[in-house]
Amino acid sequence: MEKGKLYLIPTSLSGMPLVDVYPENILTIIREIKTFVVETPKIGRSFLKGLYKDVKIFDLKFYTLNENIRQISPIIYDLKSGHDIGVISDAGAPGIGDMGTDLVFEAQRNEINVIPIVGPSAIMLAIMASGLSGQSFAFNGYLPKEQEARVKKIKQLEEASHKLNQAQVFIETPYRAQYVYEDIIKSCKDNTYLSLSVDLTDEKGFSKTKRAGEWKKENVDISKRQVVFIIQK
Amino acid sequence: MEKGKLYLIPTSLSGMPLVDVYPENILTIIREIKTFVVETPKIGRSFLKGLYKDVKIFDLKFYTLNENIRQISPIIYDLKSGHDIGVISDAGAPGIGDMGTDLVFEAQRNEINVIPIVGPSAIMLAIMASGLSGQSFAFNGYLPKEQEARVKKIKQLEEASHKLNQAQVFIETPYRAQYVYEDIIKSCKDNTYLSLSVDLTDEKGFSKTKRAGEWKKENVDISKRQVVFIIQK
Repeated sequence: MEKGKLYLIPTSLSGMPLVDVYPENILTIIREIKTFVVETPKIGRSFLKGLYKDVKIFDLKFYTLNENIRQISPIIYDLKSGHDIGVISDAGAPGIGDMGTDLVFEAQRNEINVIPIVGPSAIMLAIMASGLSGQSFAFNGYLPKEQEARVKKIKQLEEASHKLNQAQVFIETPYRAQYVYEDIIKSCKDNTYLSLSVDLTDEKGFSKTKRAGEWKKENVDISKRQVVFIIQK
Repeated sequence: MEKGKLYLIPTSLSGMPLVDVYPENILTIIREIKTFVVETPKIGRSFLKGLYKDVKIFDLKFYTLNENIRQISPIIYDLKSGHDIGVISDAGAPGIGDMGTDLVFEAQRNEINVIPIVGPSAIMLAIMASGLSGQSFAFNGYLPKEQEARVKKIKQLEEASHKLNQAQVFIETPYRAQYVYEDIIKSCKDNTYLSLSVDLTDEKGFSKTKRAGEWKKENVDISKRQVVFIIQK
């Protein structure tokens, strides 16, 4: 029996309808998948509802995979039994800074065909737009939640960017974005570059790169917005 | 006068027609741009020919920007004069591992609105599909061309992946891909993971992650193929 394939499906970044995110050939592939792995069932279902006019959500099979629920074995079993499965995170690309990685790793260990679908990646868009080093960069996920540890980490990343000539990328949840921004401009040297990519792909989004000393002169409010930060000394 | 916008337009990875790469709303944006920055004029023009039925390539204005030609000032001047400009690399996403970064940096310094368009990034797809650390990874561009320096670099990256718990990503030109692969499986420890993402988005493409010791038992021929390598100890 032929094994199923594991499709990694990036979601839109700002609630854009699916038809504005994917070309027709990709939509056709997604429409043929009947089993999905989602992070939050409600968000996953809502993402799929725009898929085709008469989509019957209750005919689809869902697995949940998140911080609390990590049942990877039955998913691998389904794949080995010949079922194609699509993975949808709450935001962004499965396997980048989210829960999808462990599932993909197990799929690889079981010689399942893993197919990443082209879609929005806020991280990649932020690096492109920053003008900072696209030849050498490191993605560091989230910074520590506790302020003292976070400031220490910011200083470490600033030094690493200088030593390795490597742009340092990190993300933050919207409700902490403003605090992280303020920690950066307070902790970094004035001539260190900071790129803010805010709500990319949304009409109100922007991507700007300035020195920390220049940012200090501006009145920046990015609270509750989706931000990718990049620093480079 | 309102400044023009700088659009960063990723190309398809395997010569797919433009209409299979972009949703309709993005195609509409690209069709309205009349000035383009290309890496190799022939490749850039060929990419744009599929854009719309009656595209008149000779009505479009082209700037060339590559290793030999680096005239950024007239492009910035055009942007400041209100012209929208699209950047198209020979392959992949402008600003990621290519010549676009310097132009984007200057645009940022001149407060031009930089708009990264969602499109294929072989690097991001490879990280997604690898199952290796999507929470912490570094992109290192190309390795040294000379074998001794390359082997040394591979060992450094293997150690860095262990020390920082960070997946190490790099790329190579197709004609050197097989040599780099052989250097990796010879130099790395048997239990170090190596992910090969080969000709992604092409029908004959694949993405596989195995331990170096497992790869050694296979007969791998990736010569003249587009490969993204990821190692993690």
